[in-house]
Amino acid sequence: MSQSISAQELRHRIRRGEHTGNTSGFAPGFVQGNLCILPRDWANEFLQFCQLNPKPCPLVGMAANPGEYRLPSLGADLDIRTDIPSYRIFRDGKLVEEVTDIRSQWRDDLVTFVLGCSFSFEEALLADGLEVRNVTEGVNVPMYRTNIACQGAGRFSGSMVVSMRPMKAADAIRAVQICTRFPSVHGAPVHLGDPQLIGVADINRPDFGDAVTIQPGELPVFWACGVTPQVALEQARPPFCITHSPGCMLVTDLPNSRLAVM
Amino acid sequence: MSQSISAQELRHRIRRGEHTGNTSGFAPGFVQGNLCILPRDWANEFLQFCQLNPKPCPLVGMAANPGEYRLPSLGADLDIRTDIPSYRIFRDGKLVEEVTDIRSQWRDDLVTFVLGCSFSFEEALLADGLEVRNVTEGVNVPMYRTNIACQGAGRFSGSMVVSMRPMKAADAIRAVQICTRFPSVHGAPVHLGDPQLIGVADINRPDFGDAVTIQPGELPVFWACGVTPQVALEQARPPFCITHSPGCMLVTDLPNSRLAVM
Repeated sequence: MSQSISAQELRHRIRRGEHTGNTSGFAPGFVQGNLCILPRDWANEFLQFCQLNPKPCPLVGMAANPGEYRLPSLGADLDIRTDIPSYRIFRDGKLVEEVTDIRSQWRDDLVTFVLGCSFSFEEALLADGLEVRNVTEGVNVPMYRTNIACQGAGRFSGSMVVSMRPMKAADAIRAVQICTRFPSVHGAPVHLGDPQLIGVADINRPDFGDAVTIQPGELPVFWACGVTPQVALEQARPPFCITHSPGCMLVTDLPNSRLAVM
Repeated sequence: MSQSISAQELRHRIRRGEHTGNTSGFAPGFVQGNLCILPRDWANEFLQFCQLNPKPCPLVGMAANPGEYRLPSLGADLDIRTDIPSYRIFRDGKLVEEVTDIRSQWRDDLVTFVLGCSFSFEEALLADGLEVRNVTEGVNVPMYRTNIACQGAGRFSGSMVVSMRPMKAADAIRAVQICTRFPSVHGAPVHLGDPQLIGVADINRPDFGDAVTIQPGELPVFWACGVTPQVALEQARPPFCITHSPGCMLVTDLPNSRLAVM
């Protein structure tokens, strides 16, 4: 299947069960998002958690009302119950099922959140001629738990998870400039240089994803990561929660360039 | 004397010989510039050198014609022959005299260049709440010769000189964002982290200015520096050249904020 089909066509294939895997590299140029669906009585606290921690939890969309499964601002015909290749169902904070359609689990009290993801800024870095090591090496980006505390909101709290891409200093400076334009997909890096200063003990042993090569003369550059809210969700243990499966994102009709604040 | 007098009033005091020293900290909020005056037959090559190396040599003003000693874009009544506290006269690349007035040396073939200086971005960093170590410690910023080659233009060439301010990583990232807004005062840093990667052997022994304290957990952050064109001038050895004396800058009527590109 061509990777250059439109975002809408890709969603239709996903809806028909013809695309069930990773969305990385598909519908280039369009925003892909992390999904989080929570019952109404947990949604306000999660919304507040996102607002207090915009770098790891940048909201790019939210359903207008509980029970609403359409998000027209992200795609005219989008149906959040069918348009993601793989969903994870959590009960009391534990993963209980992985499914390709959540129409049978849908409830009138469910509130849908879509958070920005690093695919958008990686595309901007690559377009500028920078190397993105995890793309070069064809692996998942390495991610680490840090000692940077998120601001708590009700039952949601935790420390920030970061992703890491090694770069030469001049490229890291350019990456700060590029990513600053995209605050809704994690924005500028939160740290660079010595990993221990943010509580990362061993850069070669990420907590999530895969290790990547760090060349001599490169600095590790750390971005706030969308795994942060997932960790906060696991700790908060809501009775019911639905997320996307890793790498199986919501593909929207929003051009990445539309997220640029200038 | 109050440091908060207007830029124009400061220039008048300088013109009357009442202020002959450093301009650092005076007329806060207004652009101060590096001065370079060259004979017409050297001016085009110097202009090209500045255009090819905008980070170390950012032009904020240039006289409209040879012999012109007024620069109305930088100050309505500005007279470049009298409005700088101390001038350095170079013959064949050698410093021969330091004077407070160059009316007797003025010639019809002299072309005036004004280059942005770090005072403007240091003010923006301080206004944002960042610490600028050389300001805290009350010393000149440390500057270093690097192995970063400038692009040559005619008789002008050389390697880049950089200034260094140590910062925690998060502050360095913020400094990149702030300084990116000010390309005409050296713009974003050119390097951060390991000094040896840009040919700086001993961070505690600057080639110009004074060493500053680097705290544990801080990165050295390096900016292109206005000493670069002075080094290029010394190497090119034009028969005649006038610059300001270090720290004795041209104070303009241009607000620093006017240099922000956004």
